[in-house]
Parts: sequence; structure tokens; C-alpha cells
Amino acid sequence: MLGAIEAGGTKFVCAVGTEDGTIIERVKIDTLTPEKTMPEVISFFKKHHVKALGIGSFGPVDIDKNSPTYGNITSTPKPGWANFPFLKTMEEALHIPIEFNTDVNVAALGELTHGAAQGLDSCLYLTVGTGVGAGAVVQGNLLQGLSHPEMGHVLVKRHPEDTFEGFCPYHKDCLEGMAAGPAIEKRWGKKGHELQHQQEVWEMEAFYLAQALMQYILTISPKRIIMGGGVMKQAQIFPLVRKQVQELLNGYVPLPQITEQIDEYIVPPALGDDAGITGALMLAKQILEKE
Amino acid sequence: MLGAIEAGGTKFVCAVGTEDGTIIERVKIDTLTPEKTMPEVISFFKKHHVKALGIGSFGPVDIDKNSPTYGNITSTPKPGWANFPFLKTMEEALHIPIEFNTDVNVAALGELTHGAAQGLDSCLYLTVGTGVGAGAVVQGNLLQGLSHPEMGHVLVKRHPEDTFEGFCPYHKDCLEGMAAGPAIEKRWGKKGHELQHQQEVWEMEAFYLAQALMQYILTISPKRIIMGGGVMKQAQIFPLVRKQVQELLNGYVPLPQITEQIDEYIVPPALGDDAGITGALMLAKQILEKE
Repeated sequence: MLGAIEAGGTKFVCAVGTEDGTIIERVKIDTLTPEKTMPEVISFFKKHHVKALGIGSFGPVDIDKNSPTYGNITSTPKPGWANFPFLKTMEEALHIPIEFNTDVNVAALGELTHGAAQGLDSCLYLTVGTGVGAGAVVQGNLLQGLSHPEMGHVLVKRHPEDTFEGFCPYHKDCLEGMAAGPAIEKRWGKKGHELQHQQEVWEMEAFYLAQALMQYILTISPKRIIMGGGVMKQAQIFPLVRKQVQELLNGYVPLPQITEQIDEYIVPPALGDDAGITGALMLAKQILEKE
Repeated sequence: MLGAIEAGGTKFVCAVGTEDGTIIERVKIDTLTPEKTMPEVISFFKKHHVKALGIGSFGPVDIDKNSPTYGNITSTPKPGWANFPFLKTMEEALHIPIEFNTDVNVAALGELTHGAAQGLDSCLYLTVGTGVGAGAVVQGNLLQGLSHPEMGHVLVKRHPEDTFEGFCPYHKDCLEGMAAGPAIEKRWGKKGHELQHQQEVWEMEAFYLAQALMQYILTISPKRIIMGGGVMKQAQIFPLVRKQVQELLNGYVPLPQITEQIDEYIVPPALGDDAGITGALMLAKQILEKE
């Protein structure tokens, strides 16, 4: 049996499953403080005698295997979690091989192995919800450099009719500051799902998301782009985003995937909300194969 | 003996050298039409009996090894070169292993193996000259997805005091449209080297370049960024770019490489104009090792 954790800011999804990606049992545990949350998490995996564990964590995290703080959550404002040695805590409790990465990188892996990017060696997973984040698989590897990507904070041009100043505490009007769920609510005075039939809301949302997608396409040229998260459940955004990406690129990347088959290029997650936990399970499989 | 080609829009640099990166002999051949240029290129390598060849080519090119047009130059406006089967032409003439990639990806490889990014498994090489282009090594591999990166065309916000409309035929005011050599000349009425002591020219140039670097840092998180090309010979830009990158990120990526040691993070090429040809030689070495 393999173990998987999708650690989010409000809850931990813990699951056990098999190497083919089947989830056998799962629990949700509230993200309170490490002292309160971790004992529950650990006892779930002890009960199931897992052989290996994959973790996809909210961040920022240290994913540099050569770093003394590898596997720590780093500078989060969430009380109790800054500098929490997540990986070490799990290793000391379970004594099994554990692989650690970001929630969004792991979601990209899940969609690649069992979801909308099957058969490819590359995809990008963007989540648009309370925040905006993205992970990617590039040439078969979870994307990593100096650190993990922070693609949710790329710069975007301001819509000429948008007077909302942006809510990102670091950059104000970066992508997250202009396009995450709270930006929609602050700009229009209602939550996204209450604005479903207001076309201008989604045109503006697509205006920002399409710019970010253009940056990603020009930089890492993903073989498929998967857009998930709460805001993307407004499925009417997809055609708007696709159209604006084509208009922005303006034929510059003349690949049929973008110019002709964009409906299959920019897609919702095939695994729905299970992309992350499935990817974490596959991370456990990978570490077991390496050992 | 190994062979290397750095194929540019105005000239081909052809070289022979050894596996340690030493260049023994090189020639420059004008980029006219394939009919005029290629026979000279081929005869240089035949004379030297090279065992393998690495090519870094101007683009766009097809670098997808599963594509029927792999190794072709694709949609260039350069007369005679659109759809030219570059790789096939060389293979049929020389009957040796040949590896093919973009000029900028290959320059990144050169700097990684013999230049400013030695000892790392990741770097980004940005060239700012007649055009703007970038290549990268990510987790040890030359970056590639659906196609090669086209990072020179990322979107940038307009400087509030800039009335120049941009000269990119596809996007007008993308990075290349606002920051390449011709943009400087059109905006200020003189060539870059004639404007050396005009501070506002380089502040504005850094304003655009820093935005692009921020996008690259947030997306692929390169372990070092190398900036070359004609415009970057104005060395006074480097401190301006570094400062603006720090201001834009505003502490969001709190890694010491960026917050404290940025002078060693954003650097000129250690190989000067030899980054590309050295990288092409290393590409030849790699294909020989694989065979």
C-alpha cells in the first residue's frame, strides 16, 4: 500500500492506494497547527502500514534535496507552519521512503499519469482559487530550479476598464492579485458563482488568465495546459481564455495544437479535485521504484 | 575531432574542436541562401573529418525528434530558409551523428559547461540584440516542450513615460518589440552605443528586461541568468536590471541568490560571443556519448 498527502492551507487530504493510482481510502484532516494536525496524519498512515509516501504541500516549501531545510514549509504566514520540517516529521514517524514536492507540481503529475495529459511528457497545471498557483512536468520531470515555480505571481497588463488595484500583498496587481477568487469578489462585490451570467466578469478574468498562459507557452512551451481550482469551475471561462490566448500569440507560435486544436490544448482537469492526491500517490510510486 | 555550427541570420560560425570544449579552427560564412551557404559549410566539415556535429540554429526551428520535419528551419521570413531541412541536409552530406537545437538553447549549454553557470544543472541565457531570444537548461536538459521556448516575446507592461509603440510584427509591444536594439534606435533616434551616457535610456531598457526576468524566475526558476548580445555590451545595464528585478519581486522569492547575491545571479556571459559555438561543440559531444 502507498500513501499520499495533499497538504492544503485549510485541509490535509490523506489517502492510501495502489501503484496503478487507485485510491483505497482517504480522510480529510483540518489544517490547524502542526501540533494538532500532524499526529492525526501520522496515525492514519501508521494504521495502513504504507511502504512509501508522496507529499504535495502548500508552500512556499524547500524542494532542494541538497538543502539542510529540504522538505520544510518556509515563509508561510499561516500560524505555526513557517519553517515547519514537514518531511523530517513524517520520516521520523514512519521510517519509510518519502518524496516531497509542491501541491501544484504534484497535481501536474497526477494529470500527466492519470488525467488530461496522459501519454505526454509535459504539461502545466494552473489552479485558480483563493490564490493562483501552477506546477509543471517538463521533459518528464517535476519542474524545479533554484526553487519551485511561483507562476501565480507573473506580471499581467491591466485591463483598460479595470479600476481594481489588486490584492497581492507583494505585487498588488500581479496575476494572483487580479485574477484569484478574492480579486473577483473585491472587484465585483459578489463571489464568482453569484456572477455566473455576467459576461464582463469572465471576459476580464480571461483577459488576465490568457496573458499568464501566453507567458507560460512562450517560456516552457507545455504540451498541454490544465486549468483547475474553484474559479475554473465556471466552465464558461474556457472558450474565452482559449480565444484570447490565440489573439495574444497572434500566430507567432504556429503549432496546430494552438492554432487549430486549442480546445484540446487548454482543458479542465480530467481528475477533477483528485489531481493532487493522485499525483502524490504517483510520487510515492516513483520513490519506491528509485529505492 | 568534433564539429559545431552556430547558424545565425547574418553568418554561420563553423568550428572544429575537442571534447573538452577547445576550439581548434573556425570560419565564418555569410548566411545568403541555402544553395550558396550550405556547400561551403559542408566542405569545411568534410575537410576536417569530424566524428559528430552539434548545430545551434536561428529559428524558429522544429526540434521535436518525433516530427517528420525535425531539424527544419520553419517559418522564417529570411529568403530561401523557410522550411529548409537543415539537419537532413547535413546528415546526407556527412553521414555522422548530428544533434540539433536552437542557437539560444545551445548558448545556455555552452555557458553551463564552460562559462558562467559551471557546476549548475540549470541556467537561462538571454540575448538582447537585433532581436531578443532566450534558451535554458532545466534539470540538466535543454528546455523543450511542444516546441522550443520563444521567451523573447513575453508580454511586458509599458513604461508610463514611453510613447514608442513597439516594433514586433506579431505583438507590437512585447519584450522584443520594446527592448531589442532596433526598439532603442527607433525610440531614441540613435543606436545604443551612441546613447551610452544617457541614463534614462538604460533605466527604461532595464524596466523592460527586468519584467521579463521576473517572468522567467517565477516560471522556471533558473539557477543563474546570463544576459548576452549586442545591447548587453552596455555593461551599465546590469546593475539597473538587478535592482529592478529585486524591486519587482519585492521579497516574494526570498532566496539569498536573489535577495543578497544578485550580482552573481544575473551576469554577462563568461564565454563572451563564444557561448553558442562552445555549446554546439558540447551538443556534438553529447550525441557521440549517446551513440
